[in-house]
Amino acid sequence: MSPKITVELLRQLRHAMRNGKCIAEPIQAYIVPSGDAHQSEYIAPCDCRREFICGFNGSAGTAIVTEQHAALWTDGRYFLQASQQMDNNWTLMKMGLKETLSQEDWLISVLPENSRVGVDPWIIAADQWKNMSKALSGAGHSLVAVQDNLIDAVWEDRPARPSTKLIALGLKYTGLTWQDKITALRGKMAERKISWFVVTALDEIAWLFNLRGSDIEYNPVFFAYAIIGINSIKLFVDSKRLLDTAVRQHLELDSPSKPDLTVQCFPYESVFTELRAVCAALAPKDKMWICDKASCALTEVIPKAHRAAIPYTPLCLAKAVKNPTEIQGMKMAHIKDAVALCELFAWLEKEIPKGTVTEISAADKAEELRSQQKDFVGLSFPTISSVGPNGAIIHYRPLPETNRTLSINEVYLIDSGAQYRDGTTDVTRTVHFGTPSDYEKECFTYVLKGHIAVSAAVFPNGTKGHLLDSFARAALWDSGLDYLHGTGHGVGCFLNVHEGPCGISYKTFADEPLEAGMIVSDEPGYYEDGSFGIRLENVVLVVPAKTKYNYRNRGILSKYLFA
Amino acid sequence: MSPKITVELLRQLRHAMRNGKCIAEPIQAYIVPSGDAHQSEYIAPCDCRREFICGFNGSAGTAIVTEQHAALWTDGRYFLQASQQMDNNWTLMKMGLKETLSQEDWLISVLPENSRVGVDPWIIAADQWKNMSKALSGAGHSLVAVQDNLIDAVWEDRPARPSTKLIALGLKYTGLTWQDKITALRGKMAERKISWFVVTALDEIAWLFNLRGSDIEYNPVFFAYAIIGINSIKLFVDSKRLLDTAVRQHLELDSPSKPDLTVQCFPYESVFTELRAVCAALAPKDKMWICDKASCALTEVIPKAHRAAIPYTPLCLAKAVKNPTEIQGMKMAHIKDAVALCELFAWLEKEIPKGTVTEISAADKAEELRSQQKDFVGLSFPTISSVGPNGAIIHYRPLPETNRTLSINEVYLIDSGAQYRDGTTDVTRTVHFGTPSDYEKECFTYVLKGHIAVSAAVFPNGTKGHLLDSFARAALWDSGLDYLHGTGHGVGCFLNVHEGPCGISYKTFADEPLEAGMIVSDEPGYYEDGSFGIRLENVVLVVPAKTKYNYRNRGILSKYLFA
Repeated sequence: MSPKITVELLRQLRHAMRNGKCIAEPIQAYIVPSGDAHQSEYIAPCDCRREFICGFNGSAGTAIVTEQHAALWTDGRYFLQASQQMDNNWTLMKMGLKETLSQEDWLISVLPENSRVGVDPWIIAADQWKNMSKALSGAGHSLVAVQDNLIDAVWEDRPARPSTKLIALGLKYTGLTWQDKITALRGKMAERKISWFVVTALDEIAWLFNLRGSDIEYNPVFFAYAIIGINSIKLFVDSKRLLDTAVRQHLELDSPSKPDLTVQCFPYESVFTELRAVCAALAPKDKMWICDKASCALTEVIPKAHRAAIPYTPLCLAKAVKNPTEIQGMKMAHIKDAVALCELFAWLEKEIPKGTVTEISAADKAEELRSQQKDFVGLSFPTISSVGPNGAIIHYRPLPETNRTLSINEVYLIDSGAQYRDGTTDVTRTVHFGTPSDYEKECFTYVLKGHIAVSAAVFPNGTKGHLLDSFARAALWDSGLDYLHGTGHGVGCFLNVHEGPCGISYKTFADEPLEAGMIVSDEPGYYEDGSFGIRLENVVLVVPAKTKYNYRNRGILSKYLFA
Repeated sequence: MSPKITVELLRQLRHAMRNGKCIAEPIQAYIVPSGDAHQSEYIAPCDCRREFICGFNGSAGTAIVTEQHAALWTDGRYFLQASQQMDNNWTLMKMGLKETLSQEDWLISVLPENSRVGVDPWIIAADQWKNMSKALSGAGHSLVAVQDNLIDAVWEDRPARPSTKLIALGLKYTGLTWQDKITALRGKMAERKISWFVVTALDEIAWLFNLRGSDIEYNPVFFAYAIIGINSIKLFVDSKRLLDTAVRQHLELDSPSKPDLTVQCFPYESVFTELRAVCAALAPKDKMWICDKASCALTEVIPKAHRAAIPYTPLCLAKAVKNPTEIQGMKMAHIKDAVALCELFAWLEKEIPKGTVTEISAADKAEELRSQQKDFVGLSFPTISSVGPNGAIIHYRPLPETNRTLSINEVYLIDSGAQYRDGTTDVTRTVHFGTPSDYEKECFTYVLKGHIAVSAAVFPNGTKGHLLDSFARAALWDSGLDYLHGTGHGVGCFLNVHEGPCGISYKTFADEPLEAGMIVSDEPGYYEDGSFGIRLENVVLVVPAKTKYNYRNRGILSKYLFA
């Protein structure tokens, strides 16, 4: 992996930061967040601005460029990868280490007095804007919204925004019609006296309307916004996608069954003006929900007095708690996935001694075997197929220049999953086709103990996921070992392989308690830089548990391991 | 325990809420927080306003009175006690249960439109004011500062604020002179470019100046404020306390060694005007630290541009990490305490069969035995001496009307501790002097397993206390049991028995990671309402651990059990 050469790009960007063509007044720093206008984790090529400017292509990271410096913040999963992908114009800021300055503190330490720090308001979340703005203004600087994206200004061959065919999912896959979901959502809105809800997360829109797309690789979503009122439904999506008969019938565009279940369609780009129109017509007591992770640009359209910002939306929670149809679909998907993986391991056992299997060919074989399963749509994330030292790069993806051959002498780690119409899978296995070293066996045992401890945990209703995290680490900690990533994430049903609001992590983000019906991964690991990586991952369903007692009738939960 | 009759008091308070004598414009609700102007957990009798109005005398709880309603919020430790101490004019709001409304949501649900909610700005913390004010104004109400305390207005025989004799502690007990502590503090201030620091927490002031008092029962602190500048030291304390020669010498009041270590003394009440004077003379770039738990009244004196609010102060952290002298003192204190407890249990074993020992007489005996130990000052909190069903009241304190006789048929729980000049102790033992039931033995075993799991935990440097909490609960959870309180708290050294910033709890308050030198309690429990209570508590010191490996040289910690 050779680093991206960024001398010329940085020169152009710094020119744009000073230049009156893009901005009224020069800025002294420019922030390039990771996400798109929907704060998606995985993004379309046209939105890979942070990768374009610094070369680092991991799923999380923020770049900041000043006149003198360029720095990238990312977390423990990506320290090694980022250091390999960036040239020496860039400083890697290792998040989570005590000595690492936050973006705010770093800016304050390097900027001249009264500096202006720019950012595209569409790709920074409202809560991030607020924190950053407060910290900067406290130090005499200001955060300014730069309407024209400065990366786009220097990105000559930037790809177009995709607009793929939409798939309408029937009850067989979803368990609930979109009309039922809208009605349930309006019930939650009425409970909280909310008259409007601006939906910005792509997976929430896909789940709500029982539609899927393929605008973003691995994530079956499509670029859209929705504004849901108590009596109206506004969907913002590229209009040519709505020419499809199946989609028109699914959304009842030509013959709505009820006035309050009529979907009004608008072009994707018109969300700003349409939201402004809705806001202009609000009654004094009207309140509008918007997630505080929505873009600053859209959030600011809603007058403060009408804005009810929420850390995660009712759709996020409704989507996380799977219904019986979704649970059954997820189980079927994992059974199919297990068949493909068994075939893969049988094939590997036979082929590896020949010395012809590489990380890339093994990943390709896994995909080929999965694609033979019923209702296969695609992969759910880039396959992490890694041998020996590459296994220590936590979110490694094999490239021709890093591709290693599998052998009977090194540990092989494969973290992979697929999208099937009935569910999304995510599984990691770490294997050795010869005889592992004593140290490798020892570490594997600690990781396995942690994995089992989380899977076997019994806990009261209302327990938040972060309270289970240490169970995954105890065996490693006892020997002085640890891993620098969380233990589990929510998994969507034929949706994003990472979804909120629940998770299992040492980080205490404002997650909802675990509930029966939630599906999360259980994936502790251990990584020895330059040597090997171990991760053991299953996806588990939270289920009610039967225990000897039931303290204060709170109910007890446990986990159920899929096939 | 019979409830306090509050009909007449509530009538008077509601009259004051409407009456122009105390407030310019009527208020529709009045909030009565738990704390004093220093947000102390334990408070002097003159500050027990919440107890005065509702009868509930636990250490945590907030009362709110409206024209129609009166409600008290408290946590799981106190549900039973509060329900017994309050009459039916009061609604108990059980914090931590999903169905319980927050204070804000409750106010919004019961208040008429555009209501004014009053609170004494001296006894509400700045961060609480901010949250409450935001929530109320979002719903069309407003939070207003009522300068004259309305409880004081209806409290005829309110006691005077105490002003006890100060004790100066020498190096033998403190390990560091107050001058060294000031110098170290100024180093931290310089690092962060802070020119002033307003110290409001009583234990921080006591620790900083190596002084102790006895203004608040069980807590060897004294009413004071301090404002520390880079070159000046302002101490606000009742002036007659400074007539004592030992105190004058200790503070070098008559012959300061250095100008920047000269203590300027002011009357306690003048902190408001003096802080205003300091603020008026600030240079444009001057920043002033104040804890966001400081009173709203004092915080608001500091202009926003100069205010650097911090969740906990550098003194809080410095105090939490004990120096070698303090560690040695804490060890000695626990050895002396253990001697007293051994004597107590020998005495109990002999006396209980006679049927003459009660909860109160056992507590008195424990105090008598402790008081025979060297450097004994007093108890560190009211002894929880509880038999059978009383043991299920988590923070029970035996009163004549609840006093039970110890027998060989019921579980006995004693949670007690003392202040010695060299250290503070806190220990809980649960014993049975006959044959416990199988169920009692089973629950005891789960609690003991949890206690040992926390004591034996090995964890990397940088681990926050809440990540150890589930270790204490796993054995209980497996059988469907749990307890509704945290697992551990910081313990001061001849200071408050509860101190921040570290703790072990399922709640994820913004605690600092555990560090070598910190001293915390380890006290899981199990409580069967109406039947028995079990709690097993030791105080442990965080120490460096030797492990087989040392991942990324982060260092590994473990705990050391005092004698």
